[in-house]
Amino acid sequence: MQQRILSSQLAEYVGQTVCLKGWLHRLRQLGEVNFLILRDRHGIAQAVLSAEAATTLSHVPVESIVCVSGRVVQESQAPGGYELHDPTVEVINPSAAPPPLEINKKKIKASLPFFLDHAVIGYRHLERRAIFQIASGIMQGFRQTLNAADFTEIQTPKLVGTSTESGANVYAVEHFGQTAYLAQSPQFYKQIMVGVFERVYEVGPVFRAEKHSTTRHINEYVSMDVELGFIHDHFDVMAVVTQVITGILEYLSADYSQQLALLKVDMPIIGYDIQHPIFPYIHFADAQQMLAEQFGMKDAIGAPDLTPEHERLLGKWAQQKYQSDFLFVVGYPMQKRPFYTHPDPDRPDYSNSFDLLFRGLELITGGQRLHRYEDYITAIEKMGHSLESYAHYLEAFQYGMPPHGGFAIGLERFVMQLLKLDNIRLATLFPRDIHRLVP
Amino acid sequence: MQQRILSSQLAEYVGQTVCLKGWLHRLRQLGEVNFLILRDRHGIAQAVLSAEAATTLSHVPVESIVCVSGRVVQESQAPGGYELHDPTVEVINPSAAPPPLEINKKKIKASLPFFLDHAVIGYRHLERRAIFQIASGIMQGFRQTLNAADFTEIQTPKLVGTSTESGANVYAVEHFGQTAYLAQSPQFYKQIMVGVFERVYEVGPVFRAEKHSTTRHINEYVSMDVELGFIHDHFDVMAVVTQVITGILEYLSADYSQQLALLKVDMPIIGYDIQHPIFPYIHFADAQQMLAEQFGMKDAIGAPDLTPEHERLLGKWAQQKYQSDFLFVVGYPMQKRPFYTHPDPDRPDYSNSFDLLFRGLELITGGQRLHRYEDYITAIEKMGHSLESYAHYLEAFQYGMPPHGGFAIGLERFVMQLLKLDNIRLATLFPRDIHRLVP
Repeated sequence: MQQRILSSQLAEYVGQTVCLKGWLHRLRQLGEVNFLILRDRHGIAQAVLSAEAATTLSHVPVESIVCVSGRVVQESQAPGGYELHDPTVEVINPSAAPPPLEINKKKIKASLPFFLDHAVIGYRHLERRAIFQIASGIMQGFRQTLNAADFTEIQTPKLVGTSTESGANVYAVEHFGQTAYLAQSPQFYKQIMVGVFERVYEVGPVFRAEKHSTTRHINEYVSMDVELGFIHDHFDVMAVVTQVITGILEYLSADYSQQLALLKVDMPIIGYDIQHPIFPYIHFADAQQMLAEQFGMKDAIGAPDLTPEHERLLGKWAQQKYQSDFLFVVGYPMQKRPFYTHPDPDRPDYSNSFDLLFRGLELITGGQRLHRYEDYITAIEKMGHSLESYAHYLEAFQYGMPPHGGFAIGLERFVMQLLKLDNIRLATLFPRDIHRLVP
Repeated sequence: MQQRILSSQLAEYVGQTVCLKGWLHRLRQLGEVNFLILRDRHGIAQAVLSAEAATTLSHVPVESIVCVSGRVVQESQAPGGYELHDPTVEVINPSAAPPPLEINKKKIKASLPFFLDHAVIGYRHLERRAIFQIASGIMQGFRQTLNAADFTEIQTPKLVGTSTESGANVYAVEHFGQTAYLAQSPQFYKQIMVGVFERVYEVGPVFRAEKHSTTRHINEYVSMDVELGFIHDHFDVMAVVTQVITGILEYLSADYSQQLALLKVDMPIIGYDIQHPIFPYIHFADAQQMLAEQFGMKDAIGAPDLTPEHERLLGKWAQQKYQSDFLFVVGYPMQKRPFYTHPDPDRPDYSNSFDLLFRGLELITGGQRLHRYEDYITAIEKMGHSLESYAHYLEAFQYGMPPHGGFAIGLERFVMQLLKLDNIRLATLFPRDIHRLVP
């Protein structure tokens, strides 16, 4: 049997007989000229068929696994610029029926629910597949950037004994007569591990039993979490955010150009301060002032948070003023941030926290955390919670923790916003929501 | 404020005044000569203190966060060969009390349960920390090897709608009035995604609600899963196993030599066939025969599986015969393998599957899977299960799947066996078992 080559390698074999293996993507019967289009993990390639061969193959359903051997010929009209001539076609594993989705068309026309019901084969579509290749690239770029910056990867438990981080929207699991919960984030664990490794990251699932069903929320998603110690304040954390986002985008540009081109992705615009990428920032209070003055948003003044409309306008403003698709909003009011948030020492009603807006949508939340044991005691008592339920978390702070902070990026949300998809379910392999637990 | 340098960088700053930040690891008061030992993410460093300074610092609890500035002097007796002279010490965040574990001693003497109860600070101990740095390196080496071999990383759901893979030992989760389950493995999803990407891997948590409590089992662990299409048989999968294991070990040798030395790790012995690493293999039936003849294990003959004692003897045998710490056992009887296992075409009672033994302990299970739709129908009906509960899995096979196979490595088990730890809980950051849900 001949060694298989991939569709991307044809140029190296002009004049030679090679073997391609993959899926029977499509049969194009044009009468005198007929083509078999084969799909493999690198793309598609075509073989020119005689009328007779095309008739025989017309009984083989698309998506059958085939081995196509033929002579490689340069042909500018062919996908990739090369095609196979005088092919012999062997069916390795025939498809049992025509698929429910036309995955060999340029666009899939099915409704989102129908597509998701058949996602197990829907992702064979070239564009849909490219979305998750880019998701894979984002994870690699994330890790590569952080590994180079001396971070340690951790894997923290998803079954946890207390639901103290937020309390609401938590999944309960029976664990040998006890109640366990599914982790809503690795927040407590990544802070604890700063006490060990100083700089940590984790890529893993998080679970939110939120009942609402929107285009931007799912119940299980992949969180890319970062936490680092020995910072001065949240600006040191924002510097790592900038490094990570630009690292990811550079990684995609270098290794995923084919997918970016196929999906016609507008790569984000980033400002540079001579050599270093820079994301502009605005203080929360200044953002409110500006929204009221420049955009007539009187409701912004004094509100404890920004509305999606405010964020959208801030995104436009940053694009106009700084030619940047990214904007940090810093210093959100303490009342809207979690209890472990570090206040601004100079304006204690505001926090040393930030959101990163990407084209006017929140992509990342982060900030400096409390690091003094007694500050945690005060914060937990202020919430009216018992110290006992935070015992292990508190133990880490009892024995010396450096000033630290961190952030989290939702993988699917980043994919969605980068590719301008209109539903986060299109950026999630097998989404989970109130209506969907399968496939 | 001075720029911080790390303990590992002292050699570059001889004669200069530098600032180290980290944990007050230990104070050594010897009368005339006194040392402050500081710990940071790269290791430890010492500063020479006057008797007066030592007395002042003796009131500061260990584990306090400190900044130590001093002049760098070469000193062969010092850890790392350099120390700080004439230091000034600033306490950034004092520890609230002495820690419950002596994490500045060479060995931790606490019992395992006590250690795990205080793991949030126990991992600050240099040896315990090194275990999880190596775990991090194993994940990097795994991904780096597979990325170079054109694999795509996937993230599949952990909340699943059916518990069909094994049925037993599954965690149930209430999901808005429906019952969901925690995934016991990404098996079905990784096979489905072979239909999209051909070659996939995933590193993520899996959940087993097993009631037994042994030194080798925990209820949640990190599974490193691989699956690839267009194989000839399970030997193609074993070639990837060999590549991945040697890739990981090379990665550790290159980047984690400090941790390997600290933990006195015996790196595994691997055979080489001129240039390529090679793991020897033996067929299951031949292994039984050999165990009976050479080791007097009469009970091995005709048994459907190997016992731990058989595996131990096989491990010794491979070390003697092949000078290899690794041994594949291939062709396990079909009756002991999951329904999706591909039979050996020539001896259908045996399977195209394998285990990889590492020093006589099972480390990896894998094999070729069924790929024909009708074979799945037959296999599921033979189990007496309804086809309906496998509907989405089956759909992937209905529309053309290549011959494929894969394997899974338990991260914690690999760490345990590589470092010769006597309990898997020592290789798991925050282990979950019938007795433990915290920290």
